[in-house]
Amino acid sequence: MKLEDYYTGLTRKLQDGGRTVGRLATRFIKAAPAMPALPPGSLVYRGEARTEPVRITVIDYDLEHHEQKEVERVEDCFPYRETKSTSWVNLSGVHDLDIIEKLGGHFHVHPLVLEDILHTSQRPKIEDHDHYTYIVLRMLQFGEQSGEVESEQVSLLLGRGWLLTFQEKAGDVFEPVRERVLNPESRLRKNRSDFLAYALIDAIVDHYFIVLEKVGDRIEALEEVIRLKPDPDALQLIHHLKREMIFMRRSIWPLREVVNQLYKGEVALFEEGTRLYLRDLYDHTVQIVETVESLRDMLSGLQDLYLSMVSNRMNEVMKVLTIIATIFIPLTFIAGIYGMNFDNMPELHTPFGYFVVLAVMLSCILGMLLFFRRKHWL
Amino acid sequence: MKLEDYYTGLTRKLQDGGRTVGRLATRFIKAAPAMPALPPGSLVYRGEARTEPVRITVIDYDLEHHEQKEVERVEDCFPYRETKSTSWVNLSGVHDLDIIEKLGGHFHVHPLVLEDILHTSQRPKIEDHDHYTYIVLRMLQFGEQSGEVESEQVSLLLGRGWLLTFQEKAGDVFEPVRERVLNPESRLRKNRSDFLAYALIDAIVDHYFIVLEKVGDRIEALEEVIRLKPDPDALQLIHHLKREMIFMRRSIWPLREVVNQLYKGEVALFEEGTRLYLRDLYDHTVQIVETVESLRDMLSGLQDLYLSMVSNRMNEVMKVLTIIATIFIPLTFIAGIYGMNFDNMPELHTPFGYFVVLAVMLSCILGMLLFFRRKHWL
Amino acid sequence: MKLEDYYTGLTRKLQDGGRTVGRLATRFIKAAPAMPALPPGSLVYRGEARTEPVRITVIDYDLEHHEQKEVERVEDCFPYRETKSTSWVNLSGVHDLDIIEKLGGHFHVHPLVLEDILHTSQRPKIEDHDHYTYIVLRMLQFGEQSGEVESEQVSLLLGRGWLLTFQEKAGDVFEPVRERVLNPESRLRKNRSDFLAYALIDAIVDHYFIVLEKVGDRIEALEEVIRLKPDPDALQLIHHLKREMIFMRRSIWPLREVVNQLYKGEVALFEEGTRLYLRDLYDHTVQIVETVESLRDMLSGLQDLYLSMVSNRMNEVMKVLTIIATIFIPLTFIAGIYGMNFDNMPELHTPFGYFVVLAVMLSCILGMLLFFRRKHWL
Amino acid sequence: MKLEDYYTGLTRKLQDGGRTVGRLATRFIKAAPAMPALPPGSLVYRGEARTEPVRITVIDYDLEHHEQKEVERVEDCFPYRETKSTSWVNLSGVHDLDIIEKLGGHFHVHPLVLEDILHTSQRPKIEDHDHYTYIVLRMLQFGEQSGEVESEQVSLLLGRGWLLTFQEKAGDVFEPVRERVLNPESRLRKNRSDFLAYALIDAIVDHYFIVLEKVGDRIEALEEVIRLKPDPDALQLIHHLKREMIFMRRSIWPLREVVNQLYKGEVALFEEGTRLYLRDLYDHTVQIVETVESLRDMLSGLQDLYLSMVSNRMNEVMKVLTIIATIFIPLTFIAGIYGMNFDNMPELHTPFGYFVVLAVMLSCILGMLLFFRRKHWL
Amino acid sequence: MKLEDYYTGLTRKLQDGGRTVGRLATRFIKAAPAMPALPPGSLVYRGEARTEPVRITVIDYDLEHHEQKEVERVEDCFPYRETKSTSWVNLSGVHDLDIIEKLGGHFHVHPLVLEDILHTSQRPKIEDHDHYTYIVLRMLQFGEQSGEVESEQVSLLLGRGWLLTFQEKAGDVFEPVRERVLNPESRLRKNRSDFLAYALIDAIVDHYFIVLEKVGDRIEALEEVIRLKPDPDALQLIHHLKREMIFMRRSIWPLREVVNQLYKGEVALFEEGTRLYLRDLYDHTVQIVETVESLRDMLSGLQDLYLSMVSNRMNEVMKVLTIIATIFIPLTFIAGIYGMNFDNMPELHTPFGYFVVLAVMLSCILGMLLFFRRKHWL
Repeated sequence: MKLEDYYTGLTRKLQDGGRTVGRLATRFIKAAPAMPALPPGSLVYRGEARTEPVRITVIDYDLEHHEQKEVERVEDCFPYRETKSTSWVNLSGVHDLDIIEKLGGHFHVHPLVLEDILHTSQRPKIEDHDHYTYIVLRMLQFGEQSGEVESEQVSLLLGRGWLLTFQEKAGDVFEPVRERVLNPESRLRKNRSDFLAYALIDAIVDHYFIVLEKVGDRIEALEEVIRLKPDPDALQLIHHLKREMIFMRRSIWPLREVVNQLYKGEVALFEEGTRLYLRDLYDHTVQIVETVESLRDMLSGLQDLYLSMVSNRMNEVMKVLTIIATIFIPLTFIAGIYGMNFDNMPELHTPFGYFVVLAVMLSCILGMLLFFRRKHWL
Repeated sequence: MKLEDYYTGLTRKLQDGGRTVGRLATRFIKAAPAMPALPPGSLVYRGEARTEPVRITVIDYDLEHHEQKEVERVEDCFPYRETKSTSWVNLSGVHDLDIIEKLGGHFHVHPLVLEDILHTSQRPKIEDHDHYTYIVLRMLQFGEQSGEVESEQVSLLLGRGWLLTFQEKAGDVFEPVRERVLNPESRLRKNRSDFLAYALIDAIVDHYFIVLEKVGDRIEALEEVIRLKPDPDALQLIHHLKREMIFMRRSIWPLREVVNQLYKGEVALFEEGTRLYLRDLYDHTVQIVETVESLRDMLSGLQDLYLSMVSNRMNEVMKVLTIIATIFIPLTFIAGIYGMNFDNMPELHTPFGYFVVLAVMLSCILGMLLFFRRKHWL
Repeated sequence: MKLEDYYTGLTRKLQDGGRTVGRLATRFIKAAPAMPALPPGSLVYRGEARTEPVRITVIDYDLEHHEQKEVERVEDCFPYRETKSTSWVNLSGVHDLDIIEKLGGHFHVHPLVLEDILHTSQRPKIEDHDHYTYIVLRMLQFGEQSGEVESEQVSLLLGRGWLLTFQEKAGDVFEPVRERVLNPESRLRKNRSDFLAYALIDAIVDHYFIVLEKVGDRIEALEEVIRLKPDPDALQLIHHLKREMIFMRRSIWPLREVVNQLYKGEVALFEEGTRLYLRDLYDHTVQIVETVESLRDMLSGLQDLYLSMVSNRMNEVMKVLTIIATIFIPLTFIAGIYGMNFDNMPELHTPFGYFVVLAVMLSCILGMLLFFRRKHWL
Repeated sequence: MKLEDYYTGLTRKLQDGGRTVGRLATRFIKAAPAMPALPPGSLVYRGEARTEPVRITVIDYDLEHHEQKEVERVEDCFPYRETKSTSWVNLSGVHDLDIIEKLGGHFHVHPLVLEDILHTSQRPKIEDHDHYTYIVLRMLQFGEQSGEVESEQVSLLLGRGWLLTFQEKAGDVFEPVRERVLNPESRLRKNRSDFLAYALIDAIVDHYFIVLEKVGDRIEALEEVIRLKPDPDALQLIHHLKREMIFMRRSIWPLREVVNQLYKGEVALFEEGTRLYLRDLYDHTVQIVETVESLRDMLSGLQDLYLSMVSNRMNEVMKVLTIIATIFIPLTFIAGIYGMNFDNMPELHTPFGYFVVLAVMLSCILGMLLFFRRKHWL
Repeated sequence: MKLEDYYTGLTRKLQDGGRTVGRLATRFIKAAPAMPALPPGSLVYRGEARTEPVRITVIDYDLEHHEQKEVERVEDCFPYRETKSTSWVNLSGVHDLDIIEKLGGHFHVHPLVLEDILHTSQRPKIEDHDHYTYIVLRMLQFGEQSGEVESEQVSLLLGRGWLLTFQEKAGDVFEPVRERVLNPESRLRKNRSDFLAYALIDAIVDHYFIVLEKVGDRIEALEEVIRLKPDPDALQLIHHLKREMIFMRRSIWPLREVVNQLYKGEVALFEEGTRLYLRDLYDHTVQIVETVESLRDMLSGLQDLYLSMVSNRMNEVMKVLTIIATIFIPLTFIAGIYGMNFDNMPELHTPFGYFVVLAVMLSCILGMLLFFRRKHWL
C-alpha cells in the first residue's frame, strides 16, 4: 500500500466522520446502566443490540478422547458438567437472556455474576467464588476501516473440570486453541480446565500485540508525513491515536492486575504446574503496558514535532513578508516624493536627477540585503 | 435538540454568568466554617438557607409486613428504634436543628456526628461508632440549565435494625429503593438494615453514571463544534467542563475509599451476605473514577486540538497577507517610479514603455506565484 | 468594594513591589541558619527582629475553679507546673532568650527543642519526649494590604497537667478558646491539658479556611477580569497567587501528617476521649489539603484561559490587518499604474477610463469581502 | 572532530533517514510474536535473520587449572556440566534452534525458558528455577553511524558449577572478563559460577555508562548549536535523542529491579561473599537510572530553550517589520496627497511648500524613532 | 552590588561560556568508569587530576585531654586506632593511592569501599560493615564566579573510637567542628566518635542552606529583571538555574535517605543519645528537599512569566503595526486615485474637491480611531 493512499484514507475517514469520533466519547461511558432504578442482580442485556442466534459450542476432551460439537439447545450441554474429562462450553453472544439464565442456574452461578456477563462494559477483573472463578477480559481489535480500537467483553467461568466462555459475537481468536486441543500431543490435553483457561487468556493477550503493531505502523507513517509537510490533518490523526491509547490503557492496566493475581496463586483452581505459564503470561502483559506507555510518549513527541514544524513554517512566511515589505516600502516612499506636484522642486529639473534617485534606490536594496544576511535571515 | 441551539445555550449561559462561574470557586471552599470561634460539636446548620418544612418518612418492614408513612412530629418515629423489623427514617432537610437534636438524642448519636450532618460540605467518609455507623456521601445532579454539576450531602446513620437518612432537600433518588421495598419478593425484604444501606448507596452511585453520560455528551458536541470552527467560546466551555471535573473528583475519590472500606469488611454492621454486593458496588466506583480521569484526559486533548486549530487558522491568515503583500508591494513601487515627475526620464517617452512595464509587472506576478507554489504556500 | 478598585489595588501593589515579591523567595529559605558554625542546641533567636516585651499569660482551671492573669516575671508561672488543675502558659514572643531558657530549665525541656522554638521557620512536626510532647504548627494570615499569605510559628509543649504555648507575636487566634475556658459548662473545663491542646490546634486549623476563602475570592475576581479584558497584570496576579499556594502547601502537608499522628494515637498524652475530636480535626486538614490542590488546579486553568484569550485577541488583530491590507494594497497598485507619466497610455485618454477603473476597484473590494466571508473571517 | 562536521553528520542522517527513524517505532513493538497462534513453549527463533554459524566457547577453571577452547559440536561441551570446576559455555548467536534444543535438553532447561532465549525482545528479568536461575539482560551499544542506541539480548543460565550465556551475535563485551579468568590471582578464580555471573553482568552494566557518555556529548554539542543558531534540524535531533532515552529507559528500569533482587539475596545460587559485590552493582544501576532521568530533564530543558530562541527571533523579525512599516507608510501617504492632480491645491504653488513637507516628513521619522526608543524596541 | 552589574555579570558568563555550560552535561555522567575493563575492587583514582600533597590531620580527644597535629607519613596515625580516646583522622585529598591503601589495610577496610572512596562520583549512601560504617556524602559549594553549584565527595569511615574522613581537597567546612572539639565543655568531648560523625554531617548539611540562599537571591534578582524587561538572556539564566537544581536534587534526595537510615537506628554504631540529634538533622534534610522543590516550582513559574511577558510585547508590537497600517493604507489608496492621470476626472476640476477629499480622509482617521477604541486596542 502506498503511503499517500494510506494517509489519505485515514484523513478522509476523520473528515467525514465527526460522528464516528463522537462515538468515541460514548465508548467510555456506555458502562452507565441506562436504567439505574433496577435492583442489583437483575438480568438485563446491556450491550449493542444484536439479533443473530447465539451459537453454543461444546468441546470435551481428556488425554485419550476428544469431542467437539455445536448444540442447538442450551440444555444439551448440561451433562458435560459432570463428566470427568475437561468440558469447554463457548457461547458466541450474550444477548439471549434465556440461555444465560438457564446455564447460570445449572452451574449455580451467582446472579451478580450473570449480571456482569450481560453488562458488556465491565473492566477486566477476577472474582473467586466458592466452586468457580469468574474472569472478565476485554478482547481488542483494530478496525482497519475505522482506525479505531474496538473492544469486546469476554467472560470466563472456570470450574473444576469445566469452563464456560462468553463472547459478545462470533470471532476467531479462540480458533488456534481449538486446533491445539485436537492434537493429542499438546499440553492442553495433558492438563485440566485451568490450563485451558490460561491458553484462552494467552490467545487474547497475544492479540493485543497485533493491535499495538498496527498502531505503531500508523505512528511511523504519520511521522514521515509530518516530516515532509506538517498538515492540520496529521494533528487530528495524532489526537485520534492518543485517544485510542487512552482507551487501550483502560483495558490493559486492569488486565495486568488480573494476570498478576492469577500468577501470584491467589486463585485456588489454578494448579501449580500452570503457574509457570502464568508467569510467562504476566511478562507479556507487562510488556504490553510498557509498549502502550512508550507509544503514548511517542505520540506526545510527535505532537511537539508537529507544532514546531508549523511554527518554523510560520517563521519562514513572516521572514519573506518582512524582507519584501522592508525593502520596497521605503523605496515606494522615495518614488512618492518625486511624484508630488509642487511647483518648486529643484531636483526634478536637474538632468540626472532621475538616475541619481534610481542609484539611491539600488543602494538601499543592496544595503537591506546585506543587513538581512548579517541577521541570518537569508 | 439541534446542536447549534445546544451550543448557543451553553455559550449564552457562560457569557451572562460571570457571577455563576464565580460561584464555582465558592463551592470549593464553602466548607469553611464561617464562624471559627464556635467550639467543636456545636449544632449550627451551615448550608444553603432553606425554609420549607422538613418531611420525615418512616418505612418499617420485614419479610412478612410492610409499613410506610409520613410523620408530623419527630417523636412519632422514636418507637421504631425498638422494633424487630427494619426501620428506615428519612429526613428531607437538615435545616431544622430541633428535629436533628431530638433524633440524635433518642438514637444516642455523638454531637460531633450531628455537627457533621448539619455542615453540608463534608467529604465522603465513614465513621464506625459503638452501636452505629455514620456514612456521608455526596449526591450529584447535572443542572441542565446551569451546565453545572450540583452536589448535595446525604448522611446515613446505620444501626442494628434501623437506618436514618438525611438529605439536604426532597429528591427522588431513593424512590426506586422505596418501590423495591414494597415488593415482598425483593432481596431487600429478606435482608436487614445493612442491605438497605447498601441499596441506597448503590442508587446514589448509579446516579453518577447519568451525570457522566451528560458530561460526555457535551464533550462530543464540543468536539464537533471545534472541528467545524474553533471559537473562543468553545474554549471557555472546555475550561468550564474541566472545572466541573475537578469538582466531581473531589466527591468521587473519597467515595471510592468509603466503599472500599465497606467491601473490605471493616464495618461490623455489614453482614457477610451483603459483602458480595459491596464488591459489585466497589467495581462501579472504580469505573466511575476511571471514567472521570478519561474525560479529563479527553478535555485536555480537546484543548490541544482547539489551540492548534486556532494556530492553523492564524497561519492561513498570515499566508494570505504575505502572498498579497509580497506580490503587490514591489509592483506598486514600480508604478511609483514611473509616476515621478523628473524632467528627464527617457523611458516615459518611448512609444511602448507603458506596455513593457505592464509586461514586466505581469511576469513579476507569475514569478511570485511560482515561488509560492514551490514553497507549498498555495 | 467595587471590583475595579479591588483589582486596581492588587495591581498597584504588584507593580510597586518588586521588592515585596522578592521577599517571597526569601520566605522560602529563611529557614537557613545564618550562622552554620554554631553547635546544635545553641540557643539563638532566629526570626524577625522584635523589641516589644514578651507577654506571659497564665490560665489555670479545673472543673470548679478558673484563674487567668498576666505575670511580670517568668518565675511567677513556675508554681503552676505542680498544680493538680490544668495550667496554660502562653508567651507572645520568643525573642527573649532569657525567658525561654528559664522556662525550659524549669520544665526540663531538651535544648534541641528550645532551639526549635527559637528558630521560627520549622516545618510542622510532632516530637514525643519522655514527659512532654512538642508540637510545632504554622499559623497563617492573609495580609489584605500585601495580598500575601503570612506565616507565624506556634509551638506547643504539652505535659501532664500543663501546656506551654509560644507565639511569635501577640495575636487573637487563641481568644475564642480563652473565652470558652471561662464557661464552666464547656468541654474544656471537663477535660485535661490534652483537650486544651486539641482546642488550640483546632482554632489554628479553622483559621486556614478563612485564608483559603480570601484566596478563593481573589481567584473569582481575577476570572471575571480576565473574561472581560485579558490584561498582563492579571497574569502577574495569577503568578502571585500560584506562589502563595506553593507557600501554603509547605505548611499544610506536614500539618496533615502531624494531625494524623495525633489521631492515630501515637502520642500517649492524648487521652482516648480526645481522639474522637482529633478524627474530626483530621477530616478538616484533609479538606484543607484538597482545597489547596483544587485552587492550584483552578489557577492553572485560569492561566490557560488567559493565554488563549490573549491569543484570540492577537488573531483578531491579525485578521483586521490582513483584511485591510489585502483589500487596499492591490487597489493602490491599480491607482499607481494610472498615475504613471508615460506619454503613450491609451486608457488615459478614453472618456470613461476613469469610471471603468473605479468600477473595477469596487468589484475587487466586493470580491475580497466575499472571499473573506467564505473563509469565515468576517 | 570538528563540531560543525559532527552536527552536519547527524543532521544528514536524520534527513535522509525517514526510514531509519521509522524503524525506531518498530523497535518498540517487535516484541510482538508475529505468529500468535503458536502454543507457548514452541521453539521458534524470533529475532533479526542471521546466517553466520554459532560460535560455542567453553572456559573451565578452578583455583589451580584453566582451560579455554572453542568447540565444533554442541555435544562437546556436555561433559563440562559434571566437572567440579566452574564451566562457562558461551554461545554467540541464538538463531540455531538445533543447538539451543540440545543444550536445553542436556541441562534440563524448561521449554518456556528456551522460548524466552529465542525471542530476543524480552525485558530484563530473573527467574529462579529448581536447579538453575535464568537471567535476561539487554546489552546496549551506541551506533556512531546511526546515532541510535542499539540493543541486544543476553541470556544467562546459572547452575551450580556451570554458566551458559547466550548472545545475539559475537561481541567483545565479555573479553575483559575472559582475560581476568586467565589470571590465577583474580577473584574470579577463587570463586564459583555465581561470581562469574556477577562479573559478566557487571561488564554489561559498565558498558551502559559509555553509551550515556556518548549521548551526553551529543546533548552538549546540540546545546552549543542551539545557542548559536536555533535550527529546525536541531529540534529534530532533540526529538531523536528523547526517543532514544525512552528506549533506554525500557531496558534500564527492569534491569535495576533484577539487580535489586540479586542483591536482596532472593536467588539462592548467589553466595554470601558475592552479595557485597552485588550491592556495588546495584549502586551502579541506580546511578544509571538517575543519569537517564537527568538527561531526559536536560533534553526537555533544551527543547524549551530552542522554542524560546525561535520565538525571540520571530519577535525580532516582527519588530523590524513594524518599525519600517510604521515609519514609511504614513510618509508615503503624505507624498501621495501632494501627488494628487486637483486643480485647486494651494500648497503646491507656494515657493517653499516642498521643503516644508520634507521637513514635516523628517520630523515624523524622528518622532517615530523616539517613540520606538521609549518602547525599548530599538 | 548593583542589580544591573550582577545581572550583566551572570549574562556575560553564560555568553562566553558555551564550554562552561557544556561541562555541566559532563558533570552528570563523569560517574562513568572510563576503563570498564577493570575488575571491581581495583584501586584507581577517578576524579579531577590533582598534584598537591595530601594533608593528614589527626585529632585525638576525650573528656580530659585533647591533641591535634598534622602528620607527615600515614603510618604515624596508625597507633591512634588503639587508643581509648576518640581519634579523628582527616585526609584532604584522595588522589594518593599509596596512602589510601595503607590506611585501608591497617583499618581492615574492604577493597570495594576503598574503590568507592577513590571514585569521587558516588551518590550519597551508607554501608554498614562488620566493625565499621561507611558513609558517603556530597558537599556543595556555590561558585560565585561560575554561577554553578560545585560538588565534592566526602567519605566517612566510622569505627568504635575512631573516625576517618576523606575530602577531595582541603576545605574549611569542618573548621567549626574542630574548634568545638577544643572546648572541654562542648557536647563533642562528652560523646564518642558517632557524635563526631554526626557533627561533621550536620556541618555539611548546614552548608546546603547557604547554597540555597544564594540560588534564591539569584531567582529574586531574575524576577525583577524579567518584570522590567523580558530579555532572552534572562531565559538562559532560568534554564541555567533549572539545571543546577536538577544537579542539586541528585545529591539531596539520597542524602535524605542516608540520614533517615541513621535516624531510624539502623546503624548500630550510633548510640541512643545521638539519635535525638539525628532526628533534628533529618528535619533539616527534609527542609532542604522541600526548598529545592519550591525553588524548582518558582523557576517554572518564572519561565511562564517570561514567556507571557514576551508574548505581551509581541502583541503590543503587532497592535502598533496594525493600527498604523490600517489607518494609512486606505488613505494612501484614496490619494492614489486622485493621482491618476485620466483625462476625464471631473472631481479634479471642482474648486473644493481637494478640501473635500482631505475632509473625507480626516473622517476616515477619526472613524478608525473610534473603531480601535471600541476594540480596546488603544
